[in-house]
Amino acid sequence: MKVFNVKSKQFDYQVVVGEGAWRTLRDFPRDRYSSIFVITEKPLWKRWGKAFAADSKLNGIRTLFVPSGESSKSLRALGLLASQLLKQGADRRSLLVLFGGGVIGDLGGFLASVYMRGVDCIHVPTTILAQVDSSIGGKTAVNLGEMKNLIGTFYPGRLVLSEPRVLSSLSPRNFRSGLYEVIKHAILEGPGFFKQLEACIDSLSPENIDPLLTILPRAVRVKVRVVNRDEREANLRVVLNLGHTFGHALEEATHYRRFAHGEAVGWGLLAISRLGQRLGLLDSSEGERIENLVWRLGPLPSIRDLAPARILRLLPQDKKAVGGSIQWVVPERIGQVRVTADVPREIVEATFRDIQR
Amino acid sequence: MKVFNVKSKQFDYQVVVGEGAWRTLRDFPRDRYSSIFVITEKPLWKRWGKAFAADSKLNGIRTLFVPSGESSKSLRALGLLASQLLKQGADRRSLLVLFGGGVIGDLGGFLASVYMRGVDCIHVPTTILAQVDSSIGGKTAVNLGEMKNLIGTFYPGRLVLSEPRVLSSLSPRNFRSGLYEVIKHAILEGPGFFKQLEACIDSLSPENIDPLLTILPRAVRVKVRVVNRDEREANLRVVLNLGHTFGHALEEATHYRRFAHGEAVGWGLLAISRLGQRLGLLDSSEGERIENLVWRLGPLPSIRDLAPARILRLLPQDKKAVGGSIQWVVPERIGQVRVTADVPREIVEATFRDIQR
Repeated sequence: MKVFNVKSKQFDYQVVVGEGAWRTLRDFPRDRYSSIFVITEKPLWKRWGKAFAADSKLNGIRTLFVPSGESSKSLRALGLLASQLLKQGADRRSLLVLFGGGVIGDLGGFLASVYMRGVDCIHVPTTILAQVDSSIGGKTAVNLGEMKNLIGTFYPGRLVLSEPRVLSSLSPRNFRSGLYEVIKHAILEGPGFFKQLEACIDSLSPENIDPLLTILPRAVRVKVRVVNRDEREANLRVVLNLGHTFGHALEEATHYRRFAHGEAVGWGLLAISRLGQRLGLLDSSEGERIENLVWRLGPLPSIRDLAPARILRLLPQDKKAVGGSIQWVVPERIGQVRVTADVPREIVEATFRDIQR
Repeated sequence: MKVFNVKSKQFDYQVVVGEGAWRTLRDFPRDRYSSIFVITEKPLWKRWGKAFAADSKLNGIRTLFVPSGESSKSLRALGLLASQLLKQGADRRSLLVLFGGGVIGDLGGFLASVYMRGVDCIHVPTTILAQVDSSIGGKTAVNLGEMKNLIGTFYPGRLVLSEPRVLSSLSPRNFRSGLYEVIKHAILEGPGFFKQLEACIDSLSPENIDPLLTILPRAVRVKVRVVNRDEREANLRVVLNLGHTFGHALEEATHYRRFAHGEAVGWGLLAISRLGQRLGLLDSSEGERIENLVWRLGPLPSIRDLAPARILRLLPQDKKAVGGSIQWVVPERIGQVRVTADVPREIVEATFRDIQR
């Protein structure tokens, strides 16, 4: 089991990764809290609730269920959950346990940050994406209409507990989707981690999570390091957007229906590798290694039918862009990226046509 | 013009009170911001928008209008405003100017705290209540159903600009309502401030705001001091609830329709003075001075028809109570209060019957 310390403006907290992570809760000062509520999804809780209760030894927890899927990341769902909490007597000293993937973490984290102006929460991420990325760093959000994450806060959990066992019940597609984010982290980290991924990526599946026991902590470390250097992403945290600029545009163009988030990031990584090469920043041999690794994960939903002009129009909508310009995160080699706003439109378009082929 | 410094976890900021306060904006580093949006109410902006523009010398401001009244403090209104901001190109470096009373400050402050995970805002309070109380200290909120302020954040403005001139267009009822909060502050502060209020309270009206020029800064100072000692109200800030425990119950019992907030606080002050006397904590002569001052402000909406049992049932619903118990803030004399959870039910009921007579 690996334990990482994360600094935040509000307080420092720990990310625990590995088999038995949920047991950490036995030593958590739960007596501080007047009541404990688990925010989760029904099928997930049915599958893992008992194991979690046994490991954590939390008694008297109450559960609030959220429908699966991105549409639960809404102000409406927030209001419903807050009403339920109120009805069940949650007060300022209640604790929320956010047991689920990115949707539960984002929505539940936002709920925790605003219910009675803030109650404590703990993240128990149950997808690869949530374990290596969204549960760390304190970003919470709901969507507004089709605008993803328009409304949110910076509000970390008191603890993040990532138990790899839980990943064995993921659907193959959800499992693979999370691995695109792991590839992203490996590109940011360097050749050592990248090689490790190359060596085992074909064997990874929900039935074989063993290689993840060493991969997950490495991926988590990448995120923790970036977050520790820059919680509010004014500068440094922007590198985590690697692959996300194109990715977001693809998701938006298809109304968040065609791609799992990670799949869009997969396309985004292919695109940014091409872009790096077109800009002369990235060596073609390194670019090919990146693209090969992405392709080895499996097929991605098609982007053939998407008009390049449309995708380009959607790019500046990326709300991480300041003042309308796009901050491109471009790999220079595995282990090094450059942030640049200086990319001619023609090159962006040609890049997109490259990956459409 | 008086300037107060307020400390907060996020940053320190200034509260400027007095004629010409809006001019402070001329020296505010507005170039930092990509765009400026004023959140306000239509009639108010029609009356004061030009004066504000002339004083502040802000150019190119865009306005977003919110319907008057408490019902605008909702998640729905939040979503609408966020959509409008997005449509008009507001990004992370936009500035929100919250021009209005408590509703605008609470709703707009919450909006600022969650739009793209937080943009800067400036409070320009235009009611007495907002100037001496709600604009200071960073509390933001919306209501959920009938549960007031259930959803919110701690998120102060970069600046609070309280111009007394603007109070001259308040309705007499709104004007008086704010003065109950001023009385509360005087009870917390001490005999000097209380005497000053006694000397001028009969002459105060929207047509005669001159006495406010010295009263407002004194009232603001009370709030600033408490906030500076305890931003998150875990302990000390609770004294600001003086008169609010009964007040909230009265508002809830009448579905927030019968009383202006300050009027409910007026009743709350009468009640807490009686409670203090019944508990033997408050001298009857001091109690009478408090009650006289409240009554001199004018008549309050009747509470005759409200069943004491009902009001008592609503008391523990005060979400400021931790773990269900009520933290009573009881005056011991003008200038000193005691916080106690130890009040027998019979005394609370007898107190309410006292003021019903």
